[in-house]
Parts: sequence; C-alpha cells; structure tokens
Amino acid sequence: MNAEPFAYFLNTTQRRIEEHESTIRRLSSMRGQYHDAAAFDAQLAVDDAVLYEVYMVERPAEDGELSSGLTILHPGKVGDEYFMTKGHFHAILETGEVYYCLSGRGCMVMETPEGEWHVAQMTPGAVVYVPPRWAHRSVNTSDADDLVFFWVFPANAGHDYGSIERQGFRKRVVSRDGVVTVEDNPRWLPPDER
Amino acid sequence: MNAEPFAYFLNTTQRRIEEHESTIRRLSSMRGQYHDAAAFDAQLAVDDAVLYEVYMVERPAEDGELSSGLTILHPGKVGDEYFMTKGHFHAILETGEVYYCLSGRGCMVMETPEGEWHVAQMTPGAVVYVPPRWAHRSVNTSDADDLVFFWVFPANAGHDYGSIERQGFRKRVVSRDGVVTVEDNPRWLPPDER
Repeated sequence: MNAEPFAYFLNTTQRRIEEHESTIRRLSSMRGQYHDAAAFDAQLAVDDAVLYEVYMVERPAEDGELSSGLTILHPGKVGDEYFMTKGHFHAILETGEVYYCLSGRGCMVMETPEGEWHVAQMTPGAVVYVPPRWAHRSVNTSDADDLVFFWVFPANAGHDYGSIERQGFRKRVVSRDGVVTVEDNPRWLPPDER
Repeated sequence: MNAEPFAYFLNTTQRRIEEHESTIRRLSSMRGQYHDAAAFDAQLAVDDAVLYEVYMVERPAEDGELSSGLTILHPGKVGDEYFMTKGHFHAILETGEVYYCLSGRGCMVMETPEGEWHVAQMTPGAVVYVPPRWAHRSVNTSDADDLVFFWVFPANAGHDYGSIERQGFRKRVVSRDGVVTVEDNPRWLPPDER
C-alpha cells in the first residue's frame, strides 16, 4: 500500500496553512523559560498572550517520511528577553531539520548535548540548516513583525523538550539598550556539572 | 564530532542560492524523454537550450541528514510537451520529498513502481508532498514564466534515473489547443509487461 501524494497551501499573506488547524502556545506554557520570573508573572497576570502558532503537516513516524509546517512567532519580550519557541532536541538525536524564513527578523539558537552553541540569523530568504544532534529554538528579535518560517524534518525525529525545560539554552537573546544581544544563560550548566 | 549549523540565502528575485553554483540541464541531456523526436532534433539543431538549473545544498548521505535546494525550470515546449525535469525514483525507494513552489505555474507528475500515478498542481505557496516510493518530475506549464521551487529530501535518498529514462512516466503533460492536458504516454508499459 503506497501513501497518496498530496498538496497543501502556505498562505504567506494570512500566515497560515489553508484547511489546517494550528497549535497555539501561550505565555503560560513557557513558565521557567524566561530569566526574569517577576516580569513573567506580571505579564501573565495581565494577559496569557499567544506567543506563537504552529501548523504541522505530520506524516507517520517512519524512516524516510518527512513532516513539514509553518511557525508564526509573534513579536514581544518578557523583561528584556525576546519571545521564543520552547526549543527542543529531537528524540532521535541524529536527525536534522531545515528552516526557511519567509518574513520577519530573528535568529535560531542551537546547541549540542556537549555544550557547543551557534546562533544563526533568520531574515526573509535565509535557510538555516540544523544538523543532527543540535537542539534548536527560534527567537523573534523584531519589535513589530511576526517571524514566519517553513520547516521540514524527518517524521520519525520526535521531540525532547525535557532537557531544555530544565535549564534552558546556553545562550539567551535579549535587548540591551535596544540592541539585539546574545548573552550567557546563568542557569545553564556544562554537561559534566549537571 | 558534530557538524556545524549553517545558513544559506535563497534569492527569489534573482532565482538563485547566493554563493552556490548551479547545475545546468540542457535540451541535449533529455534525448528520448520527449515524445516528439523530430521536434526534439529540430530544436536541438538550432539551440541546445538550458531547460533548468538546480542549486543543491548537499549533506552527507547519512540517515537523519537533509539535503535541500532550489530548481528553476524555464518555460518552453518540445513539440506539444512542456519543459520538464528528468524525473527520478529515489535510490532508497522508501524516502519522501517536500517541494515548496515559490513562483510560476506547473505540476508534479508522480508514479509508483506498481504504476499508480498522480499529478499535483504547483502554484506559488503550494507545498507538494512526494511520499516514499513515488517517482517525481516537475513540469512548467506556463508559456512565459520560470517555475521556481524549494525542496528538501533525506540526504541518503539518492537518485535512480534509469527506469524513467527507459520509458518515461505513465503520464505526459502537453498543450492541446492551448489547454494544459495530462495524457497517457504511449511508450509506457505496466510493470508486468516490461
């Protein structure tokens, strides 16, 4: 039995995939991820804002299948830290991912289990390759515009959020006097001190 | 040793990947692929035209790695048959591919080793999923514009051109009185008659 080919439509003006539902991530789902806990609590008391939306066109978790989709990451900050996705390793660590930035401005923060790190710029037309073994989180560094990107990854990759939830990424992306700045995350520990 | 993340830039205005070289496919590389051999010979005698260009950002042929790139398929016909790519199965048959159409108008012709076929429309914003086991060929059905698309596939998939070169796809895409038409390919044989 062969799977049937299919097509879907990326509406980049309306920032959605036609005839698909999105998953919405709100501020409340990011507790502990932003460094400034007081700012987080104060913002949440006012509004459990939508930080980002994900349209996932998921395929069976089988070798050779590819899942793809669209992420819309809204602009904003918690304290001085820009809105970002939860970020994850792939459960099958040896799987990569391709990101294609359609609009907005931001970056992809990456790191390996060994503690190497890398930050790639995301601007319209940029394609970022996240090699196998690299955890990844996208960050919207615009003050006004959504960061919108298309992505493809092996459908059997899975998501491992746990290790990132415990201590975050090694690097944080913050605004310092209006300048986008990559800083050390004080909560982060090297692998041999965890 | 972890591979380093990297980025590249898709220039959709200039239709190229910055700082990468393209592979060029000319008419002469498609001998035997178009039904009208006389029209093919007559055209080739005048000009060995560039039919399409491929920018490939290739990764090591290892499970979990993804290759990606850009194809620019120019408009034109050989006889009544629209310009098309060579088309192929993946050498590792059980691997899929994701195509994202950036500009132009065309279609993706697909078939399985068992002879099932499918034709998907390619218009700007359309994402076509080619599941594992489906051979695929793109066709530019515009009279004036390039068909431009971005694609991602497992880096270990490989290409098997041979079976398509022998008899083509089951379906051809031709112009009949100015109308884009999907027709049977008279050279094509079902699997049990090959």
